[in-house]
Amino acid sequence: MVHKRKLIPHLRRSMNICIVGATGLVGRTMVRVLEERSIRPDRLVLLASARSVGERIPFYGVEHSVEELTENSFKGLDYALFSAGGAISKQFAPISAASGCVAIDNSSMWRMDPDVPLVVPEVNTEDLSWHKGIIANPNCSTIQMVVALKPLHDAFGLKRIVVSTYQTPSGAGQKGVDQLEAEIEGRTPTSRISSHSVAYNTVFHKLDAVGQPSEEETKMMRETRRIMHLPDLRMAVTCVRVPVLGGHGESVAIETVKPIDPHSVRDILRNAPGVVVADDPASDVYPTTLSAGGSDDVYVGRIRQDTSVENGLLMWIVSDNLRKGAATNAVQILEALL
Amino acid sequence: MVHKRKLIPHLRRSMNICIVGATGLVGRTMVRVLEERSIRPDRLVLLASARSVGERIPFYGVEHSVEELTENSFKGLDYALFSAGGAISKQFAPISAASGCVAIDNSSMWRMDPDVPLVVPEVNTEDLSWHKGIIANPNCSTIQMVVALKPLHDAFGLKRIVVSTYQTPSGAGQKGVDQLEAEIEGRTPTSRISSHSVAYNTVFHKLDAVGQPSEEETKMMRETRRIMHLPDLRMAVTCVRVPVLGGHGESVAIETVKPIDPHSVRDILRNAPGVVVADDPASDVYPTTLSAGGSDDVYVGRIRQDTSVENGLLMWIVSDNLRKGAATNAVQILEALL
Repeated sequence: MVHKRKLIPHLRRSMNICIVGATGLVGRTMVRVLEERSIRPDRLVLLASARSVGERIPFYGVEHSVEELTENSFKGLDYALFSAGGAISKQFAPISAASGCVAIDNSSMWRMDPDVPLVVPEVNTEDLSWHKGIIANPNCSTIQMVVALKPLHDAFGLKRIVVSTYQTPSGAGQKGVDQLEAEIEGRTPTSRISSHSVAYNTVFHKLDAVGQPSEEETKMMRETRRIMHLPDLRMAVTCVRVPVLGGHGESVAIETVKPIDPHSVRDILRNAPGVVVADDPASDVYPTTLSAGGSDDVYVGRIRQDTSVENGLLMWIVSDNLRKGAATNAVQILEALL
Repeated sequence: MVHKRKLIPHLRRSMNICIVGATGLVGRTMVRVLEERSIRPDRLVLLASARSVGERIPFYGVEHSVEELTENSFKGLDYALFSAGGAISKQFAPISAASGCVAIDNSSMWRMDPDVPLVVPEVNTEDLSWHKGIIANPNCSTIQMVVALKPLHDAFGLKRIVVSTYQTPSGAGQKGVDQLEAEIEGRTPTSRISSHSVAYNTVFHKLDAVGQPSEEETKMMRETRRIMHLPDLRMAVTCVRVPVLGGHGESVAIETVKPIDPHSVRDILRNAPGVVVADDPASDVYPTTLSAGGSDDVYVGRIRQDTSVENGLLMWIVSDNLRKGAATNAVQILEALL
């Protein structure tokens, strides 16, 4: 191969990709996003646990059978998109990397590892340069927020973020959607993401001790600071699940170093990569979770001056958590590597 | 009458009550709350528009027929509980007051009128002393927040509030619940509170110009300042409707003059009137909109230090918007007058 490459330097390197957790909500979305973005790997291998083996998923019109994930799955592959939970990533991402197959991992397992870059392409592509075989894809609620806030940080300097989230149960995977649907239809859910009803209710993510942030709140704080290279960024985060579909909403109040105003913010965000400004209240135009569903963009609206603090701004950020919040961001990392 | 009262000073004054808008969601709840709180008026008159005349609503086991609201409806009555929208209150509350019948008005019509006290009994009963025949009942999302924040203001001094709400469509009355139900069932709603889908979605209340707060956000700011006698209180408010039932949720970040800590806050709120602390994450105990439904209390949980600002605290406040947020607060005002 090395010899061949030398002779024909423009020959495209092989691109053999696998998706680990291909039958999950995010895994299936990854397959769709690869197709939509016209990424044609030489080989696509769909991996999952033994009980999903044989399931078939179409890719460019061809049915692909799901294979069982084993330690030998990564041989001859170049990129592995992981979305099968932290335990699988902990065990298999290092095996993938050791096989020369770069792991792009959607679980929370490696996100805070100093040897693993945590990347949102619109924000910190430069961190891809030092990866050692594993790259972490951030939490969904973090991704959409930093895509909108990075250009504002560049212009005004972020000092503090107060954010409250409105998150769809699909953020917890198919289990979350199943609990919501079962409860809406009056059935007993076969699996649960909360001991409380998810339908018609507000619930929190996994909580630890009294007075402490939830797992999701901790993720948002740590990951935002790491991606934006702002280790001391002041953040107050409250994460709530609400019975919506399509994406997550975020009510965000920021305080900046320089004076900030809604007019400039709209201008900056209109030209920001991956961001769509939807802010025309007179025509009832603003981002909603349902309308963001199926899109790869981050939508921002309700951009208002926050007069309760010096250099304050309020905004409402929405994005499809399974796409930009997971699958699309992972595929964009892949694109940046290619 | 004056003569009789002088002779028998302990004779209870007559108590004849009417409910204006008796067939609405809040009106019906008012009837139930009167009964639950063992308030037995000599006469209860149920008033509504012509098209509801003849509807029957039980009160202490006796069916009461709904009568048409006219300018003569208030003669001989002592208290009128209004919940029929701003236009009806604008027209009829002054007529009620002129007839010697004290109007307790749940609409937004009179809330900012300097001649009308705006009262939450746990917070500012003293303002009842100067009423001139009309007393305003605040907005639902305001009531539950000030009940929880007043004791904290007394102890620590409120400087700033950043709040994001999670409001049930029932806050817009039966129309809101109808749109949600129809959309969940896949029917076309016969009436709407939003041009967007309410089911599975996040929507905003009525918006005005770009960059401006919504009607609901303006209400929360103005009313909170007025009820708490803090005209300069700094507030950042974002109000969102989510497809929940039972009550409104509020993610609240406060900054105080004196140092504040979660332990003291829990102690203070445990002893505060109308407040229940539900904050035991290890057992998954926290307030949810569904679980608050049917209760008259304001529930507070997720009490955490906000380390992103000096003297900061985060909390989650939930209450039944039709009860403490409307009917119960109105009936408590009536009790305070009696």
